[in-house]
Amino acid sequence: MAESVLRVTVWGENLHEQRDAAVRAIYPDGMHTTIAEGIREHLGAGARVRTATFDQPEHGLTREVLDETDVLTWWGHIGHDRVDDRVVERVHERVLLGMGLVALHSAHASKIFGRLMGTTCMLRWREAGERELVWKVNPGHPVARGLPDVFVIPEQEMYGEYFDIPQPDELVFISSFSGGEVFRSGCAFRRGQGRIFYFSPGHETHPVYHHPQVRQVIANAVRWAGVGPQRPYPTFRTGLHSPTGWFERS
Amino acid sequence: MAESVLRVTVWGENLHEQRDAAVRAIYPDGMHTTIAEGIREHLGAGARVRTATFDQPEHGLTREVLDETDVLTWWGHIGHDRVDDRVVERVHERVLLGMGLVALHSAHASKIFGRLMGTTCMLRWREAGERELVWKVNPGHPVARGLPDVFVIPEQEMYGEYFDIPQPDELVFISSFSGGEVFRSGCAFRRGQGRIFYFSPGHETHPVYHHPQVRQVIANAVRWAGVGPQRPYPTFRTGLHSPTGWFERS
Amino acid sequence: MAESVLRVTVWGENLHEQRDAAVRAIYPDGMHTTIAEGIREHLGAGARVRTATFDQPEHGLTREVLDETDVLTWWGHIGHDRVDDRVVERVHERVLLGMGLVALHSAHASKIFGRLMGTTCMLRWREAGERELVWKVNPGHPVARGLPDVFVIPEQEMYGEYFDIPQPDELVFISSFSGGEVFRSGCAFRRGQGRIFYFSPGHETHPVYHHPQVRQVIANAVRWAGVGPQRPYPTFRTGLHSPTGWFERS
Amino acid sequence: MAESVLRVTVWGENLHEQRDAAVRAIYPDGMHTTIAEGIREHLGAGARVRTATFDQPEHGLTREVLDETDVLTWWGHIGHDRVDDRVVERVHERVLLGMGLVALHSAHASKIFGRLMGTTCMLRWREAGERELVWKVNPGHPVARGLPDVFVIPEQEMYGEYFDIPQPDELVFISSFSGGEVFRSGCAFRRGQGRIFYFSPGHETHPVYHHPQVRQVIANAVRWAGVGPQRPYPTFRTGLHSPTGWFERS
Repeated sequence: MAESVLRVTVWGENLHEQRDAAVRAIYPDGMHTTIAEGIREHLGAGARVRTATFDQPEHGLTREVLDETDVLTWWGHIGHDRVDDRVVERVHERVLLGMGLVALHSAHASKIFGRLMGTTCMLRWREAGERELVWKVNPGHPVARGLPDVFVIPEQEMYGEYFDIPQPDELVFISSFSGGEVFRSGCAFRRGQGRIFYFSPGHETHPVYHHPQVRQVIANAVRWAGVGPQRPYPTFRTGLHSPTGWFERS
Repeated sequence: MAESVLRVTVWGENLHEQRDAAVRAIYPDGMHTTIAEGIREHLGAGARVRTATFDQPEHGLTREVLDETDVLTWWGHIGHDRVDDRVVERVHERVLLGMGLVALHSAHASKIFGRLMGTTCMLRWREAGERELVWKVNPGHPVARGLPDVFVIPEQEMYGEYFDIPQPDELVFISSFSGGEVFRSGCAFRRGQGRIFYFSPGHETHPVYHHPQVRQVIANAVRWAGVGPQRPYPTFRTGLHSPTGWFERS
Repeated sequence: MAESVLRVTVWGENLHEQRDAAVRAIYPDGMHTTIAEGIREHLGAGARVRTATFDQPEHGLTREVLDETDVLTWWGHIGHDRVDDRVVERVHERVLLGMGLVALHSAHASKIFGRLMGTTCMLRWREAGERELVWKVNPGHPVARGLPDVFVIPEQEMYGEYFDIPQPDELVFISSFSGGEVFRSGCAFRRGQGRIFYFSPGHETHPVYHHPQVRQVIANAVRWAGVGPQRPYPTFRTGLHSPTGWFERS
Repeated sequence: MAESVLRVTVWGENLHEQRDAAVRAIYPDGMHTTIAEGIREHLGAGARVRTATFDQPEHGLTREVLDETDVLTWWGHIGHDRVDDRVVERVHERVLLGMGLVALHSAHASKIFGRLMGTTCMLRWREAGERELVWKVNPGHPVARGLPDVFVIPEQEMYGEYFDIPQPDELVFISSFSGGEVFRSGCAFRRGQGRIFYFSPGHETHPVYHHPQVRQVIANAVRWAGVGPQRPYPTFRTGLHSPTGWFERS
């Protein structure tokens, strides 16, 4: 079970920020820093938040770091293909064992999200700085807590259906865009002992991670997903040979 | 949509049958032949059933074969790791586009099933020739049609929980074993445009695929999953750039 | 199982049509007649379609009529409270036994839909003749078959979230409106042996049931839900006392 | 949101206990007292637990009591039909608004559980003092926390499939019985803003509520369901007329 203080690792690809002055203007210390700030703002002393980035050895996601992580948030885009498969496999294993994963925006196309979903996770898109409305469709869900019935993101990349994911275990938000498109923008999944939340707002050329309600959603999602590493289930990875029947275990 | 005649390819690993006289005694022409016979017995002129095996070029699952397949059934065990990743990728793509997949028994650990589920798909097991009872828990489901409330497989390998799969979209059968274990033995999933049915009875050292009700379930599952290849959805693989808003498509 | 010819009963409240000339101008023979025509148009000789209305004895839903009904479609609004509870109970029983139910538009607030859902089924609404876009979010679903990725209803009553229903077993359509609202407009449920489809387009003051794609959806939903009456499951209504263990039934 | 101290009301029918000396021998102060003790044992200072019974005015479930209840547990059997419909309606409303409900054993046939599920909730049964094995099928679920992979209830009434409920939002436990039957014994549902857990062990003629693991499950379920009363969602009961579009709410 999670420690009383939730240990959060915010992973940011941090490549757009190095190449593109427009992105750097919005996120001078990288998107990961802004995302981490938003989590700290809401969870306060209840969380210990660190960051990790693509350029670090093992992308900053060593065994040691993951050993101390209850929830991992993930933002990536242009570096998806270059993420080391061994790191992906390591994160996958941790999620199944109970580490939470909060996948943000273009992380829909990351290796780790695709590995967990089993589908293409592709979608419709348009970069036109459109108004996004985020509607609650599950008002009792912990990730929706404290949010209004609808909130507005003035400028966003459009993400639209069909979004090729397995049906979410719980659908929490649906967005509409100025262009008329709709999108399942907040989706909760359970895989193994782990909880996964996908939240779509967050394009790099708009100040979405400075938006108060977006920060609230991400903090809620971190708390919801933050079960933390569990004891491996008995059939994990290798299965369990049970030679003599149930009574052996009573 | 599926042709009026359903095109079924029964894939059998066919390795145990070559090595083990006990298996050959039960399945002299290979398990795949017996499985194919069971489907023909129930679907008759409504299906055209062929077989394919591990030892064939591309495991018998060339593009040409898959082009003519509405539903693929899969039985594998000791050869899982040696199945060519390119064939797995090809089958995965077809399933997302609408080809049905019926995964049988030890196929829980196949690459293709794991790729679609995103979890380990591991379970508890024991080879002790135990009595399995298969109970319907979804009497209105097409895969349960024509089956009694419960049927008995006199001797089976025990498969028990925890079975590490995403929650099935529809749970159709639960089994109990003499040793007291339980197992979600009939599970329906939807991924992309495809339908997947996992059915656990079927160990190679017992005549399970000669069992009349097991054959009925597999034929039902083939019919249920047999939507057949569909037009790719607009966001398939690459996503869809929609430059000017919804009205462009009206 | 359903007969090869699907027996469909289209239930229409037919009260607005009697009171309101504007409605009568759009639906001179009643909305039920137009809905029935749309189903016949798509299912042709595959269906035998009749209608029934509020003013008939037992609202036209006698035991005899239901005995010959594989799928019932339901449109009601101002008469909800006056629908006889015995008829509601009768329809409820039939749905659990396998009769399909297609609930249209304001039927969200009908007694029968609420009885099956267990929640308030209430929603946000506005009558302002807004443009509704209906998006497919489940392209492989039978009810989405033959439909474009999105279709436009030029003028509709707005229905918006939060829609207080249990999470649908399958979500097929999401709509957006000119006002920015979103709505889960096509929802599939399974209860007992029956299939239920809720489809929200259809206000009485707009010619929605003349709309070609709306008619396609309703016909698809009728076909999907049309399993037809089944043998009662062994535990229906009273439960089943099983005095001596599973072997009694083998 | 729930107070930091969870307010739990344990409702017991308390009729068997008055009539049947065998039941009284096991539960001298009523089953509700034993159930309440088990919850206190596990939740300690984290919960304030009271009881209410059938014979009290309004069955002990007045508005005042429900105003101070975050989670209600329900055990009933021979008095189901005599429970006042107004109390059922009141409890139903509270659940939709966020009060948790933990339905125990024969509460499957209670008015309130049926009202929330929309199905018959009937099942197969036998009173033969059989051994029940309760298996975890969802090891990461909060209600499974601290439990072994399987636990044994030496003597229980058999409850078997088909259990006529909507597919649970999360299936947590499956039981097997000496007679070979299986049962979905731990089922989680969400309705409105409320959480509902059904747990089947608990016949009145066996000391099931003295069983340490059964008590652990019930305490876990109470904690999981204990969101507590929430602000009504905007469309509760009457729907929400939104005259001028989403922007009115921004």
